[in-house]
Amino acid sequence: MRELMKKIVEEGKVLSEHVLKVDRFLNHQVDPQLMKKIGETFANAFRHEGITKVLTLESSGISPALMTAYELGVPLLVARKRKPVTLSEDVYTAKVYSFTKQEETEIFVSQSLLRRQDHVLIIDDFLANGQAALGLTNIVQQSGASVAGIGIVIEKAFQDGGQLLRSRGFRVMSLARIASMRDGKVQFVKEVMYQ
Amino acid sequence: MRELMKKIVEEGKVLSEHVLKVDRFLNHQVDPQLMKKIGETFANAFRHEGITKVLTLESSGISPALMTAYELGVPLLVARKRKPVTLSEDVYTAKVYSFTKQEETEIFVSQSLLRRQDHVLIIDDFLANGQAALGLTNIVQQSGASVAGIGIVIEKAFQDGGQLLRSRGFRVMSLARIASMRDGKVQFVKEVMYQ
Repeated sequence: MRELMKKIVEEGKVLSEHVLKVDRFLNHQVDPQLMKKIGETFANAFRHEGITKVLTLESSGISPALMTAYELGVPLLVARKRKPVTLSEDVYTAKVYSFTKQEETEIFVSQSLLRRQDHVLIIDDFLANGQAALGLTNIVQQSGASVAGIGIVIEKAFQDGGQLLRSRGFRVMSLARIASMRDGKVQFVKEVMYQ
Repeated sequence: MRELMKKIVEEGKVLSEHVLKVDRFLNHQVDPQLMKKIGETFANAFRHEGITKVLTLESSGISPALMTAYELGVPLLVARKRKPVTLSEDVYTAKVYSFTKQEETEIFVSQSLLRRQDHVLIIDDFLANGQAALGLTNIVQQSGASVAGIGIVIEKAFQDGGQLLRSRGFRVMSLARIASMRDGKVQFVKEVMYQ
């Protein structure tokens, strides 16, 4: 998605070979018009797949996922990283290891909100090691529902998450695929996809 | 907002006199079409106020705030509850006490994302004791920017947050004001506002 790649180059900041800061438009400050276009792009790609729910993980995934769910006309389901006091019923859980924070988090989805009949599109802001997305697919599978695909805003293609998910048979659609961030410079994977 | 009140009655669940569960459409599962209408309602009320930014707190505030920012055509700023590794620069912070969780959280906003010239609309999903909203106004004031108003999806009008914020001179607009939740039943404040 050309507009997203432009934003990454112009407003992103490479903090190290592995860490890209995009807090001007994606997670801390969010560009709602860009999120709308991201949502339209994901929705257009999955419009004829019979999606019944969009699933994401709080909190940076919410903005692109909400716009995608809006465009598809289906509910958004937000997996929680902490079990809220109001979530007293049975839950599906999965463990997600964050390499950035070097800690394991448990994520939760109420069992009553995922049904065997659901066909779920997973959306997240970043794909690096694939642990968060894998945890979300795990939760969908526990419910007996099916995963239609995984939509990623920014894939760090030099890390192994994309390969891990694709090798398990998941359709992964990334709007921007970064090949490297050496010397403080973002290089995208050279391919003409999803523009 | 009549459609929201209908949703609360039909899909909300009163867990106690103080706790309302709305995880079918507002926080765990989110109704994007309802969020769009909520965003339009806030945007219409503040459209001529010269808003430059919408500010919310992760993560349940993001959905209504994103749609409001989209409608106003301004960026959304999401105050963080944990300082992410990518947030290395100077931050404004405020302490927010949660009566529900009985714990104090520190919230963060990057100093580079709030300017003295900003005129900020604060959006949050719930207003009970007003501590989260107050923390957000505190952060806006630290930056020298001004608070245009506070938009709340659901106000528990039987708790003192609304009065606290209004007594400090803030314009508070709540789309649904709950007078009581006694006997497992939601009673709204009887007033004809913002419908």
